[in-house]
Amino acid sequence: MDAPQTRTAPPHHTFRRRVEFSETDMAGIVHFSNFFRWMEAAEADFFRTLGEPLYGDKAEHIHGYPRVRAQCQYSAPVYFEEIIEIRLSVTELTARSIAYRFRFHRTDESAERVAKGEMVTVCARHAAGGGLEALPLPASLRRKLDALLA
Amino acid sequence: MDAPQTRTAPPHHTFRRRVEFSETDMAGIVHFSNFFRWMEAAEADFFRTLGEPLYGDKAEHIHGYPRVRAQCQYSAPVYFEEIIEIRLSVTELTARSIAYRFRFHRTDESAERVAKGEMVTVCARHAAGGGLEALPLPASLRRKLDALLA
Amino acid sequence: MDAPQTRTAPPHHTFRRRVEFSETDMAGIVHFSNFFRWMEAAEADFFRTLGEPLYGDKAEHIHGYPRVRAQCQYSAPVYFEEIIEIRLSVTELTARSIAYRFRFHRTDESAERVAKGEMVTVCARHAAGGGLEALPLPASLRRKLDALLA
Amino acid sequence: MDAPQTRTAPPHHTFRRRVEFSETDMAGIVHFSNFFRWMEAAEADFFRTLGEPLYGDKAEHIHGYPRVRAQCQYSAPVYFEEIIEIRLSVTELTARSIAYRFRFHRTDESAERVAKGEMVTVCARHAAGGGLEALPLPASLRRKLDALLA
Repeated sequence: MDAPQTRTAPPHHTFRRRVEFSETDMAGIVHFSNFFRWMEAAEADFFRTLGEPLYGDKAEHIHGYPRVRAQCQYSAPVYFEEIIEIRLSVTELTARSIAYRFRFHRTDESAERVAKGEMVTVCARHAAGGGLEALPLPASLRRKLDALLA
Repeated sequence: MDAPQTRTAPPHHTFRRRVEFSETDMAGIVHFSNFFRWMEAAEADFFRTLGEPLYGDKAEHIHGYPRVRAQCQYSAPVYFEEIIEIRLSVTELTARSIAYRFRFHRTDESAERVAKGEMVTVCARHAAGGGLEALPLPASLRRKLDALLA
Repeated sequence: MDAPQTRTAPPHHTFRRRVEFSETDMAGIVHFSNFFRWMEAAEADFFRTLGEPLYGDKAEHIHGYPRVRAQCQYSAPVYFEEIIEIRLSVTELTARSIAYRFRFHRTDESAERVAKGEMVTVCARHAAGGGLEALPLPASLRRKLDALLA
Repeated sequence: MDAPQTRTAPPHHTFRRRVEFSETDMAGIVHFSNFFRWMEAAEADFFRTLGEPLYGDKAEHIHGYPRVRAQCQYSAPVYFEEIIEIRLSVTELTARSIAYRFRFHRTDESAERVAKGEMVTVCARHAAGGGLEALPLPASLRRKLDALLA
């Protein structure tokens, strides 16, 4: 089901995480919802490396990165105590949004890819009248992401 | 990004769930990963209504429904204590898999749709040599789903 | 380890919750951390019944109820799809804190008690200099809780 | 509220964990239930260091360590991205159970203790007739824990 993958460039960031007992379910494998939490953990580590806050003050307001879309395809089960490497790539930028691609790999000798995902996030703040209001990406973040994609 | 939606048939199942405090995050809204847990809660309620086990014994082995793919698109934030209605439709059946579509709506007078999702799940058991092995859907489940889609 | 239990009064509030698949772990039972989320869900339902916000505005500031202490004793495993009744009693009030006791029971004919817990929470807001600052319980909440304990 | 602490021996194990965004709640702090998941993550790391499985086969059956009791006292809020050090000590052993004590500390220059906890766990397997059945601790684990406490 996987479209031919032409991009062979290295990921923009990698992050490793060990599976915790509380992340397993009664089927004996990692619950599928946790892969979305891991995408976010990788994104947070990516932002730390860039020196950009994932949530915080930008001049006069608090902004964050709510998700517009998230998706994951699972190809093999993941088990308690495995260390999974999450490979993050920025695939598209707009004035207000970032699109990521994720690859999840085992870190044993197999290096098997167990899942792949995508996430689109938008810079936003709470609007005065309720709901969320999209904002331009912070300029310093934008510069760093542009440089990565150049 | 939304393809024109021609299907106006009612959902095959609806399920309501109140947002818990532990499902919110520091942005003050429901964490996006919870929508995937809610899809599963709606699916479990659908299976209960059908009288089919979501996890259990089928003759000689234990089977379950690991996910092949899951996706969610978010259009509005959801807040603590809101009651969200999850509308589930079965969109496609194969010998071993079920594809669902989900719509998430507020239950106040707005009835606003806040998110929509999709999930594909496969009937499977743990294989003798490790990993998971796909199985035909249980016959009684298949009959009931076929009847719904007829 | 259970002190003799002299109080036989009915609980101040009961709340039922069905076990979700994502709350189980690879041991095939509900993960123990979820009982703490359920205590909170029962507390939230209790506050709704009282007409008091568990988190919100009180005149000029936002207040909430961070936990000072939480404890649970487990006597029997709980399984996927079981409906558990959580029986909440307020056991002690101070100017700024509420102490609860919880009993968790199956809702089948056994009505078996599967766990019991305690939680102490304090009314607080974020302090100007960082950290949390305890506040007196809102007057209307205090009146209602005093009436319950009278 | 803390009783005078006479034990000044170093912990038997320390484990560090960075706070993830999904672990925060709308009060802007780590949700209290996560401290219990962190106790378990520290225990899992302790078992790995000992070379003992936290969940697995012991001759003819699968055994695990369900919790009998868990408790946590919170003295200061913890925030997104903080790295917390969890200090684990084994405080008591019986033929079938292990009692732990945990201390949670910030890892900035303050080294502030933000919480402390206790957990009692029992070695058990699923009983033939349903429920759980306590087992003696595996001999190799028992030897290693005895050596630590000697």
